[in-house]
Amino acid sequence: LASPAYTALIRMARGGLGSEGTTGLISDLVRASLALLEETDRVDLISSVPGKAYFAFQVGNTLSGPIRIDLFDPAIVAQYGAAFVDGTYGNLNQDVLERLLYTMAISYRCEAELRGTGDRKRPATFFEVFIGNLFARSLGVNPTNQIEVLTLQPRAALPTDFIFDPGPGRRSVHMPVKLSTRERVIQAWAHQRVLDGVFGVGRFRGVLVVLSETKLDRATREVIEICLPEQWRVYQLFIAQMFRVYYLDVPVRYAALPGVFPNIQVGQLSLAFTEIDALTAP
Amino acid sequence: LASPAYTALIRMARGGLGSEGTTGLISDLVRASLALLEETDRVDLISSVPGKAYFAFQVGNTLSGPIRIDLFDPAIVAQYGAAFVDGTYGNLNQDVLERLLYTMAISYRCEAELRGTGDRKRPATFFEVFIGNLFARSLGVNPTNQIEVLTLQPRAALPTDFIFDPGPGRRSVHMPVKLSTRERVIQAWAHQRVLDGVFGVGRFRGVLVVLSETKLDRATREVIEICLPEQWRVYQLFIAQMFRVYYLDVPVRYAALPGVFPNIQVGQLSLAFTEIDALTAP
Repeated sequence: LASPAYTALIRMARGGLGSEGTTGLISDLVRASLALLEETDRVDLISSVPGKAYFAFQVGNTLSGPIRIDLFDPAIVAQYGAAFVDGTYGNLNQDVLERLLYTMAISYRCEAELRGTGDRKRPATFFEVFIGNLFARSLGVNPTNQIEVLTLQPRAALPTDFIFDPGPGRRSVHMPVKLSTRERVIQAWAHQRVLDGVFGVGRFRGVLVVLSETKLDRATREVIEICLPEQWRVYQLFIAQMFRVYYLDVPVRYAALPGVFPNIQVGQLSLAFTEIDALTAP
Repeated sequence: LASPAYTALIRMARGGLGSEGTTGLISDLVRASLALLEETDRVDLISSVPGKAYFAFQVGNTLSGPIRIDLFDPAIVAQYGAAFVDGTYGNLNQDVLERLLYTMAISYRCEAELRGTGDRKRPATFFEVFIGNLFARSLGVNPTNQIEVLTLQPRAALPTDFIFDPGPGRRSVHMPVKLSTRERVIQAWAHQRVLDGVFGVGRFRGVLVVLSETKLDRATREVIEICLPEQWRVYQLFIAQMFRVYYLDVPVRYAALPGVFPNIQVGQLSLAFTEIDALTAP
């Protein structure tokens, strides 16, 4: 399935992440993945995450990653997928938008895990393109992937995650996008520190976007969440300050971070589109 | 081969990285690995690294990682291995010590790559134990792997790389140990930043120890070095200041960093033992 459609999407995304063409190819790839998943067996998983239930798709002996039963909803894509394509997704109610984004984000990943080439980079790249496309359209500007750093001599180009620069009078957004973070999350804070140091604290707002922190033990079929909230607090205090952390499936232990010092703002990705102006407000 | 010997070493190392028992088991494991490698076929590799030549061991269709022809020298281990065991390695001349440490460091890794369980963590763990043992003995203190971070409330334990604390009147050493770094190297600078923020700048000296940055393309048999010197400069300027970076096989492009602003001190690991006092000097 996915290979020519995936390749076409990546090529189109390079020409403009927020373009109509990229949007259309994301939509096509999601629908094709969902059509195949519709005919695929499901197995319930044993959730060790309080308040959340997960299943997986199964082909032969291969299991997909864990999927939230309450958030995965192909019917929502059939009904509201047009709002993704025409750019009005920000007007959907939170509950609908949450399920729409979750289902779209995870569909290609499942399909690639079950019938893909075994290339683990593709689901990550698709997720980056999907998130980059949403924010490029909502912020009205395509992101770049590197930034010129003036260090007297010689100059250096620092590869970064997405940088959205909406222009005069607005702050820029520094957006790392990851399927999951674990220990590697320190990179997001460290890159934010570099941007603060080079351009002044606050010139770039750090906005981390992550799919989930679930881990499936394929032998026992148990789903856990791997979270490091103590370490996040230390990074937020001593490396840099991230402005928002958006998840498609908010981990239980990170959901408890807002409101507790140092008050890391973790929330559902769907929230971003109700506060999109705040991300770049001076 | 390696499984019971490896397991015994890891158990002993937990009880004391610098202990006589750990030292003896490292020596045994290295000698056993070298004995097997002696009977193993070698193939020359195509080096794209200026001034360096590499070979690999081969078993069936499996190639080991690349090995420096001029630094890998089992005869040196036979002749001077006793200096490793009795703790007088710091008195060897630089050229001998360089080859001794390189040969010991890489021997188990090659053996594990060729005939091991496919567990990629073991060579990394062996390397950490080997480096930790050398510095525990030369600094006269065993390292810890986490540090209590006081953030008002609640306290947090931050997992770190090795922390050597030689006691009153001396600085501590923060030592990340890696087989290679690539993009993940930013973690070393970010952890140093946290320590600077929590304990005051300079209380911990950052000393990064790395085996090499070589990459072997197993299809073409070409060896390259993956280096990011521009990014290192940016990290050193804007995240934290590492005090030393020691390599077993110093990458050509990092060898050019000392003396050029911001003057990152990269050198051969063998140098560490001629300047061991400087690492913890007030």
